[in-house]
Amino acid sequence: MREHGGNLDLAQQRFGGRAEDWIDLSTGINRLPYPVGEVSARAWGALPSRAEIESLHQAARHAYRTNAAVVAMGGAQAAIQLLPQLAPRGRARILAPTYNEYAGVLSAAGWDLQEVAEIDELAGADLAIVVNPNNPDGRCFAPNDLLALLPRVGRLVVDESFAEAVPQLSLAPKADHPALLILRSFGKFYGLAGLRLGFAIGNAADIGKLTSMSGPWPVSGAAIAVGCRALRDDAWAEATSARLGRDCVRLDAMAQAQGWTLVGGTPLFRLYETPDALAAQEKLACGQIWSRVFAQRPRWLRLGLPGSESEWTRLAEVLAR
Amino acid sequence: MREHGGNLDLAQQRFGGRAEDWIDLSTGINRLPYPVGEVSARAWGALPSRAEIESLHQAARHAYRTNAAVVAMGGAQAAIQLLPQLAPRGRARILAPTYNEYAGVLSAAGWDLQEVAEIDELAGADLAIVVNPNNPDGRCFAPNDLLALLPRVGRLVVDESFAEAVPQLSLAPKADHPALLILRSFGKFYGLAGLRLGFAIGNAADIGKLTSMSGPWPVSGAAIAVGCRALRDDAWAEATSARLGRDCVRLDAMAQAQGWTLVGGTPLFRLYETPDALAAQEKLACGQIWSRVFAQRPRWLRLGLPGSESEWTRLAEVLAR
Repeated sequence: MREHGGNLDLAQQRFGGRAEDWIDLSTGINRLPYPVGEVSARAWGALPSRAEIESLHQAARHAYRTNAAVVAMGGAQAAIQLLPQLAPRGRARILAPTYNEYAGVLSAAGWDLQEVAEIDELAGADLAIVVNPNNPDGRCFAPNDLLALLPRVGRLVVDESFAEAVPQLSLAPKADHPALLILRSFGKFYGLAGLRLGFAIGNAADIGKLTSMSGPWPVSGAAIAVGCRALRDDAWAEATSARLGRDCVRLDAMAQAQGWTLVGGTPLFRLYETPDALAAQEKLACGQIWSRVFAQRPRWLRLGLPGSESEWTRLAEVLAR
Repeated sequence: MREHGGNLDLAQQRFGGRAEDWIDLSTGINRLPYPVGEVSARAWGALPSRAEIESLHQAARHAYRTNAAVVAMGGAQAAIQLLPQLAPRGRARILAPTYNEYAGVLSAAGWDLQEVAEIDELAGADLAIVVNPNNPDGRCFAPNDLLALLPRVGRLVVDESFAEAVPQLSLAPKADHPALLILRSFGKFYGLAGLRLGFAIGNAADIGKLTSMSGPWPVSGAAIAVGCRALRDDAWAEATSARLGRDCVRLDAMAQAQGWTLVGGTPLFRLYETPDALAAQEKLACGQIWSRVFAQRPRWLRLGLPGSESEWTRLAEVLAR
């Protein structure tokens, strides 16, 4: 298995404690989640009906401001797993560094893979991958620059897993283009990664293929029920975006006081340059706060945002040691 | 989308009512489900850890009485979706009539497909599919007959989605064979189809491939939490098996009084030969009880078992009209 945030068992093995004792900042999952509320007996017990799945798709179109075709899946990851089968094997280019599952899944499927540093270098690819804003460095790409790339690639996949609080970056409204496919994660912004919900948004042909490959019941009844409510709750989304913006400023200030430099980030996580990321991770872990480091980048430390005030307090205390 | 039970929206379109007004007997999902109980904030919010997924696999090994390799997936259906990629495209043979997703998924993936009526005719296939006990006719295959087939096929997939209450039929204990792969559904026997949980059980190579194709977080936190509890609850499983056995006798008697003949069944559903299945379905539907009919078999009516005593009473009343 590839290296990921959220690997709390590793933290527990090395530093002890129960999962619930830890503040897990190793991911970009919002720690003040959308309230799950009551899940009905029917949602637990019954196979989701076509009408229920279509309601979820409508809610996603509302939240992502698009009229394009949509398919719900078990997280953006489930869509990534299917990418190699969306078209005949060919040349894939990935704007890197980024989320490592793209390279992993495509190379396992025998694609010819190249990681590039600039958008222009994606031209000529059968399959081009951009995460916008990017994980882990928060790099952002202008929608027009991505649109300009479309005639020069077979298919452009834009992973907008961290785009909720920066909707002006999203290409979801233009996803009905024959060369564009947008992936969205539900669990990160809504703080419900355990629900396993994400979406692919695109042209009818691509979404038809992904729908067929995902089978008739790709997501759970709970994901449909909670997703339908959350994706239509504009007030919660606006308040959460505003709160995340304030919290980024607060975390950046704490990091700066440690002598860490902001490399970049999204409203859901921040990436800092530190003198020694492993040492910083260990310091935090001794206070049972888990963070993300990167084998290839020994000075990079990625931190999600604390949730409750008591989590902020504990982070401040641990950093002050 | 292929024809399935559980298509309550069709029932509602034709006969009215809200989903919760209907008694859905169109599936083989137990209507007295395992109690979901409390789902923790961590199960909703966090990505499932490797340790949590491994606990679920251990619970599955316990329930299915096997030491073979296991991978949890979003229902047995999720495993079916991946079958075409488990080996190079070749000749698939399916013991039919059976669950129609096998033929649908394999033919969509370009496999050379043949439906056969007897186990012996599966010999020579690269991929042979048997559902045991079979859906919809309840036909059972002796484990030794299936084992004898193994040297004569590339791979034998045995779908044991309805095998919970008939464990003597299961090949899960022998799943660690290079040519055998067992699929299990969690949602049917435990009455929690909306949770989307199932398992593939087999040799390390096949399970390794399926694990890789399913990605790092193939099931939800709720599925892990509820699945771990349910699969280790032997007392509930025994009581439920006993109750289902009694309920089959009860339903068969009611059907016989209608002049319907039992074709076969499993402890989770019964298949009856009726003078006119569409007329029987309509009669039941007028009392908002949904059933399953089969386009190819105009006299077949499949009924799941009612759950509560009030559901039994309503069924008796509707049949008496």
